[in-house]
Amino acid sequence: MFAVLRIGHRPARDKRITTHVALVARTFGAERIWIDEADEKIEENIRGVTSRFGGPFAIESGVSWKKVAADWKEKGGLIAHLTMYGMPADESCAEMRDAKKDILLVVGAEKVPREIYEIADFNVAVGNQPHSEVAALAITLDRLTSGEWINRRFHGGSLEIIPAERGKNVIASEVQE
Amino acid sequence: MFAVLRIGHRPARDKRITTHVALVARTFGAERIWIDEADEKIEENIRGVTSRFGGPFAIESGVSWKKVAADWKEKGGLIAHLTMYGMPADESCAEMRDAKKDILLVVGAEKVPREIYEIADFNVAVGNQPHSEVAALAITLDRLTSGEWINRRFHGGSLEIIPAERGKNVIASEVQE
Repeated sequence: MFAVLRIGHRPARDKRITTHVALVARTFGAERIWIDEADEKIEENIRGVTSRFGGPFAIESGVSWKKVAADWKEKGGLIAHLTMYGMPADESCAEMRDAKKDILLVVGAEKVPREIYEIADFNVAVGNQPHSEVAALAITLDRLTSGEWINRRFHGGSLEIIPAERGKNVIASEVQE
Repeated sequence: MFAVLRIGHRPARDKRITTHVALVARTFGAERIWIDEADEKIEENIRGVTSRFGGPFAIESGVSWKKVAADWKEKGGLIAHLTMYGMPADESCAEMRDAKKDILLVVGAEKVPREIYEIADFNVAVGNQPHSEVAALAITLDRLTSGEWINRRFHGGSLEIIPAERGKNVIASEVQE
């Protein structure tokens, strides 16, 4: 089981990036996201997507990241912090897969507290170049699931997209419980 | 050779997402990005990263996307438009790799002109769920390079990050030409 913890979220500045982080978490196989700063708009937005395109996917903002991390560890899960300064993702993800434990992926905004590097079981770099926490999360979940995220099925949504060579093919149905 | 064309960029709203798109393009193996709307700040920002962390990577904003796409086609390159409505990325990317041609990846903001679906040789979906053009670009370049983007070497920068289990290990050197 995978979950995501977004830290350093600043509602005014990070609204869209954190939204992308949450949507990537949902699509690429995580079951939930916690966001440190309270942000009702993002919660509403992500719950709207989950209700239209299906779940399960949970979002909660305004949490203590220290408590989330401590609870996760207490339950025997691993913590992986995504950072351009960390160790190569391919090797770290192989090690994590072999551990067969629940994994909490910590995704920071621009500055993260130094403590994160210490509490993390893995500091994971998707390349050691500056790019994007959105991309780093997608690639890490891709590696952790060996690409199997693509087969994830969502339930209870009202919209389904059917692959098309040109244009858009969307099936709208009654909401199913 | 890979290049990226960002369309529908709105400087006020998309500044950070487009910046992430450009940084992902650079890290994951593209040689350049074109952005349809002029945005000097993004140009400066990306040139700053390229000067600190190395290149080559070119950025140009304020271009006609139609002209960029037409020139690309005229030179024999393929155009792949990333969209959640498209065909599965794994298969499309395998086909594109086999074609051994230059590939222009078109990354739209929220709304894209219908024409894009028509001029694209491939409409590519990284999953048919709503997530992020940043993640979609990273996964597509990952598949197109069979993960080899990680071995890309950058030149002429003054900073290099050395993978570390904890904390940050950055080597600063004289700028090399």
